Amino acid sequence: MINLNFMPDNKNIQIGVFDSGLGGLTVLKHFLKKLPQYDYLYLGDTAHLPYGGHSKDVIYNYTKEAIDFLFSKGCKLIILACNTASAQALHRLQQEYLPAKYPDRRILGVIIPLAEKAAERKRIGVIGTRATISSGVYEQEIKKINPQAQIFHNSAPLLVPLIEEGLASKDVSNKILKQYLRPLKQEKINTLILGCTHYPFLLTDARRLMGNNCDVFDPGNIIADSLINYLERHPEFKSSHKKIGKRNFYLTDQPENFIRLGEKFLGQKINNWETISL
Amino acid sequence: MINLNFMPDNKNIQIGVFDSGLGGLTVLKHFLKKLPQYDYLYLGDTAHLPYGGHSKDVIYNYTKEAIDFLFSKGCKLIILACNTASAQALHRLQQEYLPAKYPDRRILGVIIPLAEKAAERKRIGVIGTRATISSGVYEQEIKKINPQAQIFHNSAPLLVPLIEEGLASKDVSNKILKQYLRPLKQEKINTLILGCTHYPFLLTDARRLMGNNCDVFDPGNIIADSLINYLERHPEFKSSHKKIGKRNFYLTDQPENFIRLGEKFLGQKINNWETISL
Repeated sequence: MINLNFMPDNKNIQIGVFDSGLGGLTVLKHFLKKLPQYDYLYLGDTAHLPYGGHSKDVIYNYTKEAIDFLFSKGCKLIILACNTASAQALHRLQQEYLPAKYPDRRILGVIIPLAEKAAERKRIGVIGTRATISSGVYEQEIKKINPQAQIFHNSAPLLVPLIEEGLASKDVSNKILKQYLRPLKQEKINTLILGCTHYPFLLTDARRLMGNNCDVFDPGNIIADSLINYLERHPEFKSSHKKIGKRNFYLTDQPENFIRLGEKFLGQKINNWETISL
Repeated sequence: MINLNFMPDNKNIQIGVFDSGLGGLTVLKHFLKKLPQYDYLYLGDTAHLPYGGHSKDVIYNYTKEAIDFLFSKGCKLIILACNTASAQALHRLQQEYLPAKYPDRRILGVIIPLAEKAAERKRIGVIGTRATISSGVYEQEIKKINPQAQIFHNSAPLLVPLIEEGLASKDVSNKILKQYLRPLKQEKINTLILGCTHYPFLLTDARRLMGNNCDVFDPGNIIADSLINYLERHPEFKSSHKKIGKRNFYLTDQPENFIRLGEKFLGQKINNWETISL
């Protein structure tokens, strides 16, 4: 009897990118640029958006369903592009998908690459959803690397709804962003972590508001570099394809807003999409 | 054999009030004032909040689970205080809970009482969630009564997140509300329907912004009068209790925000609450 697990696999490696909605596109954009040869399956759980005001259990349940869907579609690597899911559900999911039990399935979060990058600095600001900020995960991860770092944070719960409504960079979003950043600016932070995958939709505004003395990284860029590094260390997940891979989008609710705003942000058409129930 | 359906029932009548979150309190407040003798079970589906950006199917599924929970707890009458659920799920739920099949279960919405009240006027404005506005239900119901009425509408998707964040009446909410009302004001409407059960948290602001030539009803007051009228016509659901009934609150996610803002709005303590999974 042929063991199917050892059959040669001519298919490309599929990478799953999971977010509550539009936000993960700020990560996917950099993946498409730096690692175009992979196949990408993007899942936006727009039926449950926004995640950031929910409890740990609710976030875990939503994320688990999404992950199981992406694995069932053949993904080998899944990036929890959503900071809230990375902060509240990743650890438990990684315990459930132990490499010893599932050698061809990995789930990676986005917190550690950003924390590592920021930990080079001394006065670090973080904005995120209420669930991410209350988890304290950025502070923990930064202090593991740089115990002297001082971390200041503020939750910014309205930014996700504003961005999903297509109001990024509008006057009203700028005013609200300014309010959220004010206490961090007063602390004279010298780097700011945009600790929610939606926030890079406001990257230009955040940089302008924070001024020249504060670095505001583009998280997607750092996460893409971290993925390249991971793939170097784990060649079993490396693609040998030379051509540009496939891109498929799955949404758990009506797609109009996602596609309109997503195409604008990515600067390319979103052709292969499907609405699904989880 | 004794038919249990005809056993005398000494328990008080339980009324279920369902909303996606805090909003239904704007209705419950008037029920407690005008019909204090009933037992009330309030369910806020905060795990799925906000409803207003979702598709009809998603809204139906969430509402169905909530309704089944309230009936399982012994409610005889359920008010879908949520306009979005009333607009998108009520009709289908009423078909499933036909009185002939379930003589002791009724589900009532909030759209018709408000449409009837507004239909006395000529130039009617409606603000609501995207799902409520796109359903066109207010226009349909008003035109059944007053075919000459002119209806102007605008969806106001950010108001629910703002209210749930406790930002009602703050500067930023006022600015956003003003933007949503501007096109209706330009149409010189003479009555405004707050077509989302959350919006009465902004009632004073809406009245001030619309000025003296436009009536802005308090929807909860009209819905409570409509319930009194319904109970007169359906004595089988009438309570004979003389004392103040019980009040129980169920939430599908973390309760802190709900209880803090809810107690402030109701002007009384919320003691009996529980978080549940649907």
